[in-house]
Amino acid sequence: MSPVPRLAVLPDGSDARPVSLAGLTAAIEEVGGKVTSPDEAEGLIWTRWQDPALLAATLAGLPDVRWVQLVTAGIDRLVPALDPSRVWTSAKGCYSRPIAEYTIAGLLAGMRSLPTYARERTWREQPARSLFGADVTIIGGGGIAAALTAMLGPFDCRVTVVRRGPGGVPGAARTVRSDRLAEVVPGTAVLVVAAALTPETVGIVDAPTLAALPAGAWLVNVARGQHIVTDALVSALAEGHLGGAVLDVTDPEPLPADHALWGFDNCLITPHVSCPAALSGPYLLARVRDNVERFANGRPLAGIVDVDAGY
Amino acid sequence: MSPVPRLAVLPDGSDARPVSLAGLTAAIEEVGGKVTSPDEAEGLIWTRWQDPALLAATLAGLPDVRWVQLVTAGIDRLVPALDPSRVWTSAKGCYSRPIAEYTIAGLLAGMRSLPTYARERTWREQPARSLFGADVTIIGGGGIAAALTAMLGPFDCRVTVVRRGPGGVPGAARTVRSDRLAEVVPGTAVLVVAAALTPETVGIVDAPTLAALPAGAWLVNVARGQHIVTDALVSALAEGHLGGAVLDVTDPEPLPADHALWGFDNCLITPHVSCPAALSGPYLLARVRDNVERFANGRPLAGIVDVDAGY
Repeated sequence: MSPVPRLAVLPDGSDARPVSLAGLTAAIEEVGGKVTSPDEAEGLIWTRWQDPALLAATLAGLPDVRWVQLVTAGIDRLVPALDPSRVWTSAKGCYSRPIAEYTIAGLLAGMRSLPTYARERTWREQPARSLFGADVTIIGGGGIAAALTAMLGPFDCRVTVVRRGPGGVPGAARTVRSDRLAEVVPGTAVLVVAAALTPETVGIVDAPTLAALPAGAWLVNVARGQHIVTDALVSALAEGHLGGAVLDVTDPEPLPADHALWGFDNCLITPHVSCPAALSGPYLLARVRDNVERFANGRPLAGIVDVDAGY
Repeated sequence: MSPVPRLAVLPDGSDARPVSLAGLTAAIEEVGGKVTSPDEAEGLIWTRWQDPALLAATLAGLPDVRWVQLVTAGIDRLVPALDPSRVWTSAKGCYSRPIAEYTIAGLLAGMRSLPTYARERTWREQPARSLFGADVTIIGGGGIAAALTAMLGPFDCRVTVVRRGPGGVPGAARTVRSDRLAEVVPGTAVLVVAAALTPETVGIVDAPTLAALPAGAWLVNVARGQHIVTDALVSALAEGHLGGAVLDVTDPEPLPADHALWGFDNCLITPHVSCPAALSGPYLLARVRDNVERFANGRPLAGIVDVDAGY
């Protein structure tokens, strides 16, 4: 019989927590774990996605904590607190399906001019593009790429995944390394950014990348605003080079009310809600249950963070 | 060797034509047919979706025309001109994929509040629902139901098709006859209307149907406005009973600028563009090529209209 894993949930009262303390406690107890005070804990569920100083300070007083579960998929804001003496798990992969759902929702809506229809409220036809048979390039080879590729299947899209590491994505026509991005962009009707933010991917969609996209191409960002050089995107939209853009993340964020990006009819902006709290709860609880069970049984945890790579 | 089929394209100058006369001529010639004057024609491509009197009058003078190809999927407006002595083909099934694409685009956009985000242009979170695991009911068992069911596959939806005739739709969990609609509606998170308009389906989504939907359900109409009792829908939206509605068709159409339906944030209205001319051309030309070949070889045509059923 496996021992009872003892976990703490911190910081108390975090407003970034996608599920309640009661929900987390129930999930942990459901698989035989126990929520304890931080002093007694061997594992920690850390519910804030930012503020690495607070996280580091908290852990400094908790030498017995061997495992830290974070609650977001992107953990770039917490990288300074990652301590290689413990095992870190993020929610990576966990929210892939709702984020892929947002991606195809925004993309199809944009291509069919639904944002314009929503604003106009008149019986007047707007431009329409179809996703059928489109060449789609996804930057990032993780869970979002896999879930999105599955959703694109019925549309007969040809999917190219651009990723840092080796390994293909099921259903993708091809997977290429990041250094070949410039080579695939000219044949891309839809470019989706779904990668972790690392020093290598900051600004990966820059002016040359945007200029190399065919006229009328669509851009979707469900990763981090800093993946795109914002000024270059504003220029590309102003020139009418792109079909449009769907941005769930921006740089800066929140996007100021007077920012130029708000001014384009073919640029749909949402406030970092590709997997909002209303949808993420069940996915996070499933990950917590899974990892508490794995921890109890000494099996490898899901979503382990590569501390050197930063994701 | 098959004879050269002789086809006329009428009426000249129709503004409803989704492809040009040159495009139709090229398609016909590509498969060995010939575009002739109406007097010499044995087949007719009729490019208008309304005005049955003009169609009937035209055909009255053309006794040699054995086959009439119509260019829309829904032909309810031309039913009075259907003459059982000729073979009639519509574009049914032909535009199913772009129409299904519109359906999932509008549905996902609505469930994620994208129309509200498009209007608001502020960094403020709106409600979100997910399509994952949803119970979806599709009224109509034709090409749209089949294409949409395929698109819903990656979302693990449970699809129920409600149709007049027998036969299942591949991928649907179940197919039931129209008289069982009231039975399936209470378990439906998303109701899609994708049926032909016939006397039996006029007003099929009425006040009792809307009231029987679970609170928060979504409604999509890509068929004809008259399938829905408009006043009942306005009431259901005003009461906040529905999650929202996506209407590509309305009753009346065009929807007057002062109509109550325009006033709901969660009602997305588009002007009958689920398969706009910009997207329908290639699909129609493929159908014309296919049917001209079949006609030349004496094989059964695609999209044959059941004159008694009216679709």
